[in-house]
Amino acid sequence: MDPADFRRNAHALVDWIATYLEQVERYPVLSRVAPGDVHSALPPQAPERGEAFAAVAADFERVLLPALTHWNHPGFMAYFASSASPAGILGEMLSAALNQQAMLWKTSPASTELEEVTLGWLRELIGLPAAFDGVIYDTASISTLHGLAAAREQAVPGASAHGLVRVERPLRAYASEHAHSSVDKALAALGLGLDALRKIPADADFRMRPDALASAIDEDVAGGARPVAVVATIGTTSTTSVDPVAAIAPICEQRGIWLHVDAAYAGVAAIVPELRPRFEGWERADSIVVNPHKWLFTPMDISVLYCRRMPTLRAAFSLVPEFLRTAEGDRGVRNLMDTGIQLGRRFRSLKLWMVLRDFGAEGLRDVMREHVRLARLFASWVDADANFERVAPVPFSVVCFRARGSDGASPADVDALNERLMERVNASGDVFLSHTRLDGRFVIRLAIGHYRTSEKHVARAWELLRQGVA
Amino acid sequence: MDPADFRRNAHALVDWIATYLEQVERYPVLSRVAPGDVHSALPPQAPERGEAFAAVAADFERVLLPALTHWNHPGFMAYFASSASPAGILGEMLSAALNQQAMLWKTSPASTELEEVTLGWLRELIGLPAAFDGVIYDTASISTLHGLAAAREQAVPGASAHGLVRVERPLRAYASEHAHSSVDKALAALGLGLDALRKIPADADFRMRPDALASAIDEDVAGGARPVAVVATIGTTSTTSVDPVAAIAPICEQRGIWLHVDAAYAGVAAIVPELRPRFEGWERADSIVVNPHKWLFTPMDISVLYCRRMPTLRAAFSLVPEFLRTAEGDRGVRNLMDTGIQLGRRFRSLKLWMVLRDFGAEGLRDVMREHVRLARLFASWVDADANFERVAPVPFSVVCFRARGSDGASPADVDALNERLMERVNASGDVFLSHTRLDGRFVIRLAIGHYRTSEKHVARAWELLRQGVA
Repeated sequence: MDPADFRRNAHALVDWIATYLEQVERYPVLSRVAPGDVHSALPPQAPERGEAFAAVAADFERVLLPALTHWNHPGFMAYFASSASPAGILGEMLSAALNQQAMLWKTSPASTELEEVTLGWLRELIGLPAAFDGVIYDTASISTLHGLAAAREQAVPGASAHGLVRVERPLRAYASEHAHSSVDKALAALGLGLDALRKIPADADFRMRPDALASAIDEDVAGGARPVAVVATIGTTSTTSVDPVAAIAPICEQRGIWLHVDAAYAGVAAIVPELRPRFEGWERADSIVVNPHKWLFTPMDISVLYCRRMPTLRAAFSLVPEFLRTAEGDRGVRNLMDTGIQLGRRFRSLKLWMVLRDFGAEGLRDVMREHVRLARLFASWVDADANFERVAPVPFSVVCFRARGSDGASPADVDALNERLMERVNASGDVFLSHTRLDGRFVIRLAIGHYRTSEKHVARAWELLRQGVA
Repeated sequence: MDPADFRRNAHALVDWIATYLEQVERYPVLSRVAPGDVHSALPPQAPERGEAFAAVAADFERVLLPALTHWNHPGFMAYFASSASPAGILGEMLSAALNQQAMLWKTSPASTELEEVTLGWLRELIGLPAAFDGVIYDTASISTLHGLAAAREQAVPGASAHGLVRVERPLRAYASEHAHSSVDKALAALGLGLDALRKIPADADFRMRPDALASAIDEDVAGGARPVAVVATIGTTSTTSVDPVAAIAPICEQRGIWLHVDAAYAGVAAIVPELRPRFEGWERADSIVVNPHKWLFTPMDISVLYCRRMPTLRAAFSLVPEFLRTAEGDRGVRNLMDTGIQLGRRFRSLKLWMVLRDFGAEGLRDVMREHVRLARLFASWVDADANFERVAPVPFSVVCFRARGSDGASPADVDALNERLMERVNASGDVFLSHTRLDGRFVIRLAIGHYRTSEKHVARAWELLRQGVA
């Protein structure tokens, strides 16, 4: 495909994409294909001769389009919504064509420095002090892995160099029972092991109990273990509960333990002044993860780690082989490869820069405020309906609830009822909800976060739910 | 920005991109900005009000464009070239708009199954047996991290669950002194530590010495250590040398040690039949990393890990929290989140699928063959010129060489001469070369891999080099 073909094909694709964005509600949010449908509809081997793009586009429409679950549909209210706003899509288009690889400053001064600039903008928008230095990774899983690698380096100086095999005291990390599985995976990867994670009980509102945390740490230390990190979450995955960071931070400070805050979903909501109190104390953390690809309308993938101790992070991962040594590096220029495991780095800041400029701070606040309003509105409908019950507070834009079931129904029956209800609602194609378990019980989640989700979509979800229990 | 604005802005952007692809040679390959230029040209804060895309595009042209190092320029011959062919750019455009997140089969059947299909195509093209199952990660660093995590799990069963702190025998990994730094970083991350890596001497052609490997392992085992993995490289970063995998594999098999093959750059060249002998024995590896974003004309980022022991990899990282349990998972459908650290997954297979169909197997072979021919041609020019010397064989598309310097010049003088020569050539803007050190000496590298690099570009590099020593 030469540039002239590209021009023609790309214009056709842009028309398709623009129409898709206009008419995405024509499609069922949740794909209706069966496992294997895509696999069996495509040839088992690559073509020997090159094919025209029109043939590829036709196969896309025939085979792949029905197999999409439409994350970019305003009825997507499952998990945490991740939406690609038009400005973010433009950023990705340009990023793909430029194909920057910012391992070194000189291999992409634009990407290296725009990352600093946009992360400075975002840091100020969410109200973190300048002591926090930022770095972009792909996903929150990788951001948390790096935060905890730095914590490991602080607790066991030289851990990256010498490993953990000869460490004598057991290592421990702490998180609430509602922390995200990425914490478990990071500990598995880092050689601390899943067993190193002590899950701290939560209160009735699913928030980590600081008293239980302090006791657990002190008990472990008395038993000879070495605490490595505490992970507090602002906006847990199940209920978006907020661990009391202001109470957790001093526990960590007094004991010299790294505090990592997982605000992957909710962190960007600190842009909204009236939501800022939910973030009290997070400025005392050592590292914080915030994902623009969740609630900041930026396409997958882009996760930000803000860290107050970036030299500790660099100590864990900076190796400079000769072929990557540059005169600029010697003069103190930042080479992003030194801040993590990944040598290759896409130009991710470009899409974030475009989203921040397209919405403006005011525009971002407006959309997030509306999402929170819609979540509270939906919660009020649940609260007012005797057939439903809400099972968690609504600090952000997620509502956890369930149908009550008939009098005398067993918990298992009520769980089965709710599972069927969710599947029936999702089968409508208009909305897509997900679930969790709280206190062992099946709970439906409605998560608002798509930049175009409006009251109409939330009302439709409620209509379907009420019809489902009628 | 609404869909109508998007349509207009995206068409304008497509025209810009198409012109960029046509006229990329107007720009100096290596950016000429100074550190801080981008930072100081942009405001310190995000805008309060949203801005028109035209303003953003104007800032892009004014501030960022001069700060790009043009990886998508056919004169880019530094590091390993990574080029974004038009079909790959189209794939990224569509992927951004669809914003798929394939953590579970149901959250993107299309992405989950197209990954299987395209990795099956690629596996067959490069001649690996069906016993190799594939998974897409972002970068080779992360692929290697996962390969070595699986190796760790095999050598220390339960390592992910229980960690390494209580392991009594020191752990060891082995790689040649020319292995990529991603191996070091993976060992640092995994808790084995940088010290766990024993670097095996290479022969005069920079290939790992199997006899030295076997001795090192046996010595370590006799000393009480436990070998975890051997990393062999097909196409090392400095010289693209090829470790003798066919001799290394039996050493690993006899001792039950995981063999990971780093073919991040060269692996895709196994598509070319006459290059296939360089890959002898790699089918005996436990895991192999191959990067389509290097020499397969696919935009950053996409790395593939082929693994013969995927259950071991999954054992290290499969955790299924309730909110991600699905009926499909219970029925044996693959949920990609179980094959690694990252929960979030972009729709990376789409661009690879488009590239494979656009070029066809024949087209890919033609371009790679031409790159190898050009490298040999350049090597022949070096060999025939008394002012230069070639310092390594050319198994693929990279040539390592240096200017000889005047009679009686000290090694330090010759190194300085070559560093100045490279900087002068790069300052031309027509080509961008990088360097390495071999046996302590500064060496210039010319790496061919851009889909549009032709004899004209290689000849221009040679012209500049000859002028530089004249």
